[in-house]
Amino acid sequence: MRILGIDPGLRRTGFGVIDVQGTRLVYVTSGTIVVPPDQALAGRLKVILDNIREVVQSTRPTVSALEKVFVNTNPASTLLLGQARGAAMCALADSLLEVHEYTALQIKKSVVGNGHAAKEQVQKMVQHLLGLNGVPAADSADALACAICHAHFHPLKQRLQDTGQLPVSGRASRIRGGRLLG
Amino acid sequence: MRILGIDPGLRRTGFGVIDVQGTRLVYVTSGTIVVPPDQALAGRLKVILDNIREVVQSTRPTVSALEKVFVNTNPASTLLLGQARGAAMCALADSLLEVHEYTALQIKKSVVGNGHAAKEQVQKMVQHLLGLNGVPAADSADALACAICHAHFHPLKQRLQDTGQLPVSGRASRIRGGRLLG
Repeated sequence: MRILGIDPGLRRTGFGVIDVQGTRLVYVTSGTIVVPPDQALAGRLKVILDNIREVVQSTRPTVSALEKVFVNTNPASTLLLGQARGAAMCALADSLLEVHEYTALQIKKSVVGNGHAAKEQVQKMVQHLLGLNGVPAADSADALACAICHAHFHPLKQRLQDTGQLPVSGRASRIRGGRLLG
Repeated sequence: MRILGIDPGLRRTGFGVIDVQGTRLVYVTSGTIVVPPDQALAGRLKVILDNIREVVQSTRPTVSALEKVFVNTNPASTLLLGQARGAAMCALADSLLEVHEYTALQIKKSVVGNGHAAKEQVQKMVQHLLGLNGVPAADSADALACAICHAHFHPLKQRLQDTGQLPVSGRASRIRGGRLLG
C-alpha cells in the first residue's frame, strides 16, 4: 500500500507519500505546493489541482488521506480554505483515488500519542517514524503525518469492514455519476 | 461570445448557457446537477467536476461566470459550500475557461434592477430577457442570471481594460504553474 497524504491550504498545500511494507513505514517523497498569491482564485485552485495530479502521476499511490481543515471563526477564510480543500479533493477523486479523511486530533494522536501535540512534536515524530535524516518542513510533516495516520487506521478499518461493523463505503468515496436535469 | 453561468452548491449546482449576439441574448441550455447525498464528500465533488466538464464539452462556452456564494453563519456549512465552489471552479479552470465572479447583489441588480429582488422576480426576468416559454427552475434561473450579468458587465470591463483603468487580469484567472518544493 502506498499512501498519499495531503494537508490542503490555499497558499501552501503539503503532500507526503509513504509505503507500508508489513509493519514498516517507508518514506517515498514529500513537499509543498506553493500557490502564487498574485492571481485570481480559479487560477490558484488550478495550481493545486494540477500539482496534486502531477504528484499522483509521478508517485502512483494506491490510496489517499486528507487532513480535515480547521474551521476558522472568520467565514471568509473558511470559504477560501473550503475551496482549496475542494480543489485538492477533486484532484484525488479525479485520479480515482479513495480519499480518507482524518481530523488534526486523530492525526496527532496517531503519530505523537497526544491529540494536542505541538507542531514541532509532530515534525520530530514523523522524522523518527520514517527514519529521516532531517526534520521535514511543517507542511510536508503534516501531510506525512496524515499518511501515517491512515497507515495506522487502515488495518482497523479493514477488520471492521470484514466483520461488517463498518459499511464498505466508510469514509471513502465511491464515484458515481450525477443527473443532468433540463 | 457564449457564456456559461454556474450557481454552485453541494446538493444542487445550477448551470445556464447563453449566446451574446450584438445586443441580443439567446438561450442555449440550462439545468441542475443533482448530487446524490449518499456518498462521501470526494465522490460528491467529483460529480460536480465531471458534470460541469460535460456541460463545457457539449456546449463549448468561451467564458464562464460564477455566483459568489453566500457566506453562511454556520462555519461547517460554509466549509461544505466552499468545497462545492472549489470543485465547480476547478472544472471551469481545468477547461481553460476564464472565470468571472459576481455577487448575488450584482447579479440581481443587473437582471432585475434591484439588488434585493426576490427569487421569483429573478426567474421571471430571466424568462423575459431570454424569451423563454416557461419560467426556468430556481437553480437554472440563478445560473442563467449569472451569465446575463456577465453579458451586461463584459462591455464595461472591456472598455475599462482598453483604457487601462482595469488591469487585464481583472477578476479573471490566468493559469500558471506552482512550484513543487522538496
